This record gives sequence, C-alpha cells and structure tokens, in this order.
Amino acid sequence: MAMHMAMEVDQADDPRLQAYTSIREKDLTSGHGARFIIEGKVTLETALRRGRFKLESLFLAASRLEPLADLLAEVPADVPVYVAPQDVMDTVVGFPMHRGVLACGIKGEIPFPANFLDADAKTGGPSTLLMLSGLSNHDNVGACFRNAAAFGADAVLMDGQCCDPLYRKAIRVSSGASLWLPYAHGGTGADMVHAAQAAGYEVWAMTPRAKAQTLGTLRVPEKLAILLGAEGPGLPDDLIAAATPVRIPMSSGFDSVNVATAGAITLAHVFGARESP
Amino acid sequence: MAMHMAMEVDQADDPRLQAYTSIREKDLTSGHGARFIIEGKVTLETALRRGRFKLESLFLAASRLEPLADLLAEVPADVPVYVAPQDVMDTVVGFPMHRGVLACGIKGEIPFPANFLDADAKTGGPSTLLMLSGLSNHDNVGACFRNAAAFGADAVLMDGQCCDPLYRKAIRVSSGASLWLPYAHGGTGADMVHAAQAAGYEVWAMTPRAKAQTLGTLRVPEKLAILLGAEGPGLPDDLIAAATPVRIPMSSGFDSVNVATAGAITLAHVFGARESP
Repeated sequence: MAMHMAMEVDQADDPRLQAYTSIREKDLTSGHGARFIIEGKVTLETALRRGRFKLESLFLAASRLEPLADLLAEVPADVPVYVAPQDVMDTVVGFPMHRGVLACGIKGEIPFPANFLDADAKTGGPSTLLMLSGLSNHDNVGACFRNAAAFGADAVLMDGQCCDPLYRKAIRVSSGASLWLPYAHGGTGADMVHAAQAAGYEVWAMTPRAKAQTLGTLRVPEKLAILLGAEGPGLPDDLIAAATPVRIPMSSGFDSVNVATAGAITLAHVFGARESP
Repeated sequence: MAMHMAMEVDQADDPRLQAYTSIREKDLTSGHGARFIIEGKVTLETALRRGRFKLESLFLAASRLEPLADLLAEVPADVPVYVAPQDVMDTVVGFPMHRGVLACGIKGEIPFPANFLDADAKTGGPSTLLMLSGLSNHDNVGACFRNAAAFGADAVLMDGQCCDPLYRKAIRVSSGASLWLPYAHGGTGADMVHAAQAAGYEVWAMTPRAKAQTLGTLRVPEKLAILLGAEGPGLPDDLIAAATPVRIPMSSGFDSVNVATAGAITLAHVFGARESP
C-alpha cells in the first residue's frame, strides 16, 4: 500500500499551518478564490472521492496517521499532509480538535446563478433546482444541500444574501454535499428567479400564505426550481409575485417548519412524482 | 392594565434563583418531578398561553420588565417574577443571557408510552402518532416535536433511550411544541411498538432498506404511528421486523436525510393524504 509522505510539524506557529489557525474565529471563505476548511474523516473521504474542489493541504493529529492510511493513499502526490502532535494541533486551531482530521480546500470562482444557468442549462430530461434567497444560517444552508442531494436536485442556486455553503459548519451539516453538488452564489433574488425562468424553469415560491396553491395539487413541471426564503421573514413579496406561490398543507394552529425541512418535503414530493408519475 | 408584582433580586447567590444557576451545565430535567428551563419571549408566550406544565417562577432582566408588561399580565398571581440587573442575571446563569427572559417549569409525571396509550386512546377519527426510538440528540428531538405539531400529530411517544424534550435546547428547536403537544417517554422500543399495535395503530418503521415499501404506494391507515430511529444506526432489526418497513424514495448516490426531516416528509405526506384522500 502506498503511503503518502507526511510532513511533521512541531511548532504551532509554523507558517505552513497558517490556513488552520483559529479556524473558529475567521470565516475563511469570504470572497472568491479563498480557502475553506473541512473536518473529520467522512468529510475528507467525500472531498477526496467526490469533491469538485482542489485540496491545498491536509493537517492531521499524529495519532490519526496510521488509522487513515488507506484514505491517505488517495491523496494526490502534490498535496502536502502536515502531521503534528495533538496538543500542537489544538493550539493551532484554537480549541480541542478531537477528530484530528482537517483539510484546506481552494474555493476558486463560484458563478452567479445567472451565469451558471447560461453555462450549465440542461438541454433535455427533467431537472430540479433548489434556489435559496436570504438564508444566512449555516445549519439551514448545509441542511438544504443535504436534502437537495438526497432527492437528486441538479444544483443549488443562492442569491448574494445567503451565507457560504463552504463554511465549516455548513459543510458538516450538508454531510459533505456542498463539496460536490454544483452550486452558484451571488446577485439578487430577482435576478436569480428571472434567470431560471429565462432558462425554461417554472419557479415554485414556497410560502405559507393562504392564497398559494397547495403542493399536492400542482403538476410537477419538467424543469422546476424550488425557491425558499429565510425562516422568519420568508420570501419577499416581489419574489413571490414573480413566481408560482406554493404552500405545504399544515395544521392551522401551528403552521411553521424549518426552511430546510420545507425544502425537503417539496423535494421529496417532486422526486416521488417523477419516479411514479 | 394589571402588572404582575415583580420581586427585585440583587444578589446572584439569592436562593430563590437556585433553579437558574449554571443552566448550561446541569440538565435540570433528569428524572420525574424535576424542573425545566425555558428561555425567550416567544417560548414564554407559548408556555403561558398553550403550555400544559405549571410554571414555578419567571426570571427577567430588569430592562425586559416594561417591554413585556402585556405578557406579564397573563402570569398567574401565584407565580413569582424575579427581576435582576443584567449582570446579576448573567452571573446566575453562567453566560450572557442577552434575551433576558427565563422561566422555570415543573415537569411532573410523564407517562410511559404504553400507559399513555391506555389512558388517551382516541376512540374515533383519524389519528397520527410520531414514535421515536433512541433519539439522543436534543436538536433532533426538538425538530421532531416541531414537525409533529406542524402536521397535526396527536402525540409524540418516545422510548427510554430518547433524550428529554424539555431540555432547554429541545424546547427552543421545537418552537415551543414540546410544551403543549402531549407526549410519553420511557420503557423499551419494543414495548412502545406493541402498545401502539394493541391500541389499533399500524406502525410504519421508517428505514432506507431496499426491501421496504415506498411511502407513496401505501394506503394511509386511520390510526397510524410513524416510527423513527436514531441517525446513524437507524432502527434496530427487531423493531423493523415488528412493524411495516417504509422507505422514502431517494437518490441512489446519497440516500440520507436527517431523522427529523424524514419524519417531516412522512408526516406531511400523511397530512396531505388525509386532507385530500
């Protein structure tokens, strides 16, 4: 079995570990071209076997080197693997990193939704997009990616008011889906909706408003974009007006589910309808 | 407008505030008859207007007294309202309590699922129960309550391996639903399943296993119990064997959603089927 060459690092201030310092405090992924951090064995596996981003380096606690030997054999030869004692790792990252597995990825250029739709428009067959407007909570964005992946959505499109799906916690909650599922990010919600419509997508604006049609009564179109707004305020009026308002039937006394859950219910319905029309 | 008599407390070690000390460290709800803590204005509203538990006291930051006057008028006269400066409150609870609103409730006796089913068996009309086995994550249990409430489930039944739905974070994630939605807690998963079946419920064991029937192909029975197991391990074999295994159709490459999300998809499907059979 090939074993990747590991480089031992003994000093927490070693400049090669700069990407890993105080990772809880800084959001590494602000702006294009920046780095992002993944953590844990399962996510590293996803990044190596399925991820669409280049890894810049790995950073492991020394005790993890042997148990991870099989996985490390899959690391490209030009990606350095830094190894340090657990206490050095804890000092670098700024808290006890029990999992002992980190990697740094290169984010690169992420297209705006309109550009993504120009470049990646599917020419035939059914297509489902999940579109997010104003979701600033990392858990919700991560959960949206996980659900989009589970129900076979082709991509996630986000306006510029959404937070970064490559934030550490968003990747974790997504079960690694944000590392491989195509996505676009930036611009206004209105631009995103109009671009989807111009590309032939019917847009369902998910909203609890009474006048919206209910999920079960609508025909699922060949090209469908499911649009979700932030929990609390929900989708702004202009986006609802620009699309087809759709409501998930709920109990009248308590009509509120988490935004990612609302997306999952809709995605599951669409997936089921396409499997057995 | 009636204003509830507020009692000023200036010392963090005042014995009347004992229930509120270091609330992050202790799980107040272990064991029957214990207390639980709720936080925030919205949850307090739910507890006062809809909750099924008696409140023992309220504890507010002084700055919140006036803005909450309307709500405080609803507090029963025998429930003391303690008021302290923000810094005293922070010292008592052990961290900055920005919301400035806490209350302490009395949990009382929570029945086991089998006893609950004996006492509360619905005699007519459709009924949906959500049953949880081995869910030890507070976020997941809270989210299950929120989803059960949103889709009109009659109760949540939990085996003894589940965590307490009155844990502070579980209440918050439930949007307060665990304060009013009837629930039972304790005993084994097998006892719970058998008790539901003895009470006339068909039990759907939600599982990704290939041989399970898919959600959309099953008739929704008049009395249905939806059974969920812990994320990761899922439901144990004996519980799946004792019930009707049901699968949510998913993408073959990534067949995993959060357990509360799987419950929401099933509950939404059942709610929709009952609304328009």
